[in-house]
Amino acid sequence: MKPVTLSDIAERLNISITTVSKALKDYPDVSPKTKALVKELALTLNYRPNSFAVNLRTKESKTIGLIIPVIVHHFFSSVIKGIISQAEKKGYLVIILQSNESYELEKKQIDLLINQRVDGIIISLANDTVDFKHLNDVISLDKPLIMFDKIAKLVKCSKVIINDRQAAYDATQHLINTGCKRIAHFRGSLLPQNSIDRFLGYKKALVDNGIPYDPNLVYICECDDKSFEEGKKNAIKLLEDHDDVDGIFINTDLVAIGAIAAFNDLGVKIPETISIVGFSNWFMSSVISPTLTTVDQPGFEMGKEAFKQLFKEIRQRKNNLPVTYEEIVLKTSLVKRESTKTELTNRV
Amino acid sequence: MKPVTLSDIAERLNISITTVSKALKDYPDVSPKTKALVKELALTLNYRPNSFAVNLRTKESKTIGLIIPVIVHHFFSSVIKGIISQAEKKGYLVIILQSNESYELEKKQIDLLINQRVDGIIISLANDTVDFKHLNDVISLDKPLIMFDKIAKLVKCSKVIINDRQAAYDATQHLINTGCKRIAHFRGSLLPQNSIDRFLGYKKALVDNGIPYDPNLVYICECDDKSFEEGKKNAIKLLEDHDDVDGIFINTDLVAIGAIAAFNDLGVKIPETISIVGFSNWFMSSVISPTLTTVDQPGFEMGKEAFKQLFKEIRQRKNNLPVTYEEIVLKTSLVKRESTKTELTNRV
Repeated sequence: MKPVTLSDIAERLNISITTVSKALKDYPDVSPKTKALVKELALTLNYRPNSFAVNLRTKESKTIGLIIPVIVHHFFSSVIKGIISQAEKKGYLVIILQSNESYELEKKQIDLLINQRVDGIIISLANDTVDFKHLNDVISLDKPLIMFDKIAKLVKCSKVIINDRQAAYDATQHLINTGCKRIAHFRGSLLPQNSIDRFLGYKKALVDNGIPYDPNLVYICECDDKSFEEGKKNAIKLLEDHDDVDGIFINTDLVAIGAIAAFNDLGVKIPETISIVGFSNWFMSSVISPTLTTVDQPGFEMGKEAFKQLFKEIRQRKNNLPVTYEEIVLKTSLVKRESTKTELTNRV
Repeated sequence: MKPVTLSDIAERLNISITTVSKALKDYPDVSPKTKALVKELALTLNYRPNSFAVNLRTKESKTIGLIIPVIVHHFFSSVIKGIISQAEKKGYLVIILQSNESYELEKKQIDLLINQRVDGIIISLANDTVDFKHLNDVISLDKPLIMFDKIAKLVKCSKVIINDRQAAYDATQHLINTGCKRIAHFRGSLLPQNSIDRFLGYKKALVDNGIPYDPNLVYICECDDKSFEEGKKNAIKLLEDHDDVDGIFINTDLVAIGAIAAFNDLGVKIPETISIVGFSNWFMSSVISPTLTTVDQPGFEMGKEAFKQLFKEIRQRKNNLPVTYEEIVLKTSLVKRESTKTELTNRV
């Protein structure tokens, strides 16, 4: 069965296509009787307006694009869920693309989405994105762009983030409060802003507490889909290099879970010998042994806020109102679990 | 900056829109010189063909729809990744919707996708989908439909599945081979075909091994986003009801992980007192303690195969070839880990 067209309806009723089209849109120059006939037949035949033609007229596609580095990832899948939940309420569909942390792929995908005439784009950058021309292209086409989590400070658009530096500071402060004196950091790749900010928060907490910062205690993880293995490897290397380390602040939970697995295998006691704090609060962190103290990063909320801001900007453009870029900073909290000791001030 | 249109190019070169359009499409009735001028200017101005107009002409949207019950879910996010990886290769974009295991929402989403004129739909059904009219509507509109994982046997379309019954049989047989004699089953909801099949596989393995089937040992989990809690609750209830149970085959890993957490809390030894086999092989299952023996369900492969079949059917329709529905059955394997004992025949 081929889709029913306006001309099918026109033919059956022996009227013009224009009349059918006008009747369906309730134009005043079509008689109520004709309107009723057309609408009834359209219903009976299960007529669906051709979305391409509607789009061509309204210049809206009612779809938005979302580019994320990885899908099989607790944080990003929570963000997707948040975006879709809001988009659905406003009648928007979401096209999802995965950049695989590749700048080249990300550029291509931006192009695909622009060609697809999406009404706006939400993006979290790939680790190796170093140039922002593709993002500025979106903006110069007057298409709403929202960045979240892995953002580029230099690109002028709305952003939904957390205060990574403060969250990392608090996480490190917690290690210090529980008695750790020699604290290592497994950081993310060198480029992403959030990985830089988490590193700076860690460093500042040390300095503010009179603990000298030692660059040898900072290990880099690419934090891609090999995160778990990287965490294991780094943990083993850390033990070999510095057997006096008593705490680690780790850039992301999956790496921390790898480190825990390595320490469990080697019989290193957590938190007695080494305390660990992760970042993101993956569900997994609450079920491993020991459970992981971590920064709760509100993925679902981030997704919701990102879509809300996008929708606001779509409306502003549609109504020829000035567009206001916003930086939305969501709250995080430290979830204290078994991988760290009780804070000294709280001890009896 | 507004997008550049055909008419912008026409105006600048002082030629007709038709000529510009023909030049870009390499029509023979436009001179090579004009073609070169038009193409150069189009490149300079960063002209992008209007996808709505292209779609209206080709009747293709180069987008497909994907409806899944939940996104924050290791198996389904792996499937998404598989679908997107293939779609990208063929130049298709993927619109993703989450039915939240709701039949009502699923119906609405099918409608949205049809109205959006996607070129095809891939779906895994919601737990409470009892009627298949919305799916038959897709088929009667001659739009390719592929079902995977949670399918409806009665709907005539291609399907990508695993042999759930055999996989469950093998999982239960493993428990029997390791010495378990009183084996419980935490099954999924009553309706989904895969949950029925896994139950039947469990039952058949018992009967084939001369172990009487006891309906009191079968507990139901809805397997929604409360799965972990359900697993915990069922495990505690099972201990109260039947303290002689020595093995459990559990419909999905997240429920099994909940059960492990409950047994760990209660000091019930796994696998010595109770052995556990899960289903799906979530990443988490390899890092919890004890690690979980489970059926490896190839999510990424399922996604890839689903898109490949969809693409094949899109081509068949486009070329007016007969469409052949296929049932693609992917292989599973049992991953033996710490939550079950060594098989008796393998013991020294």
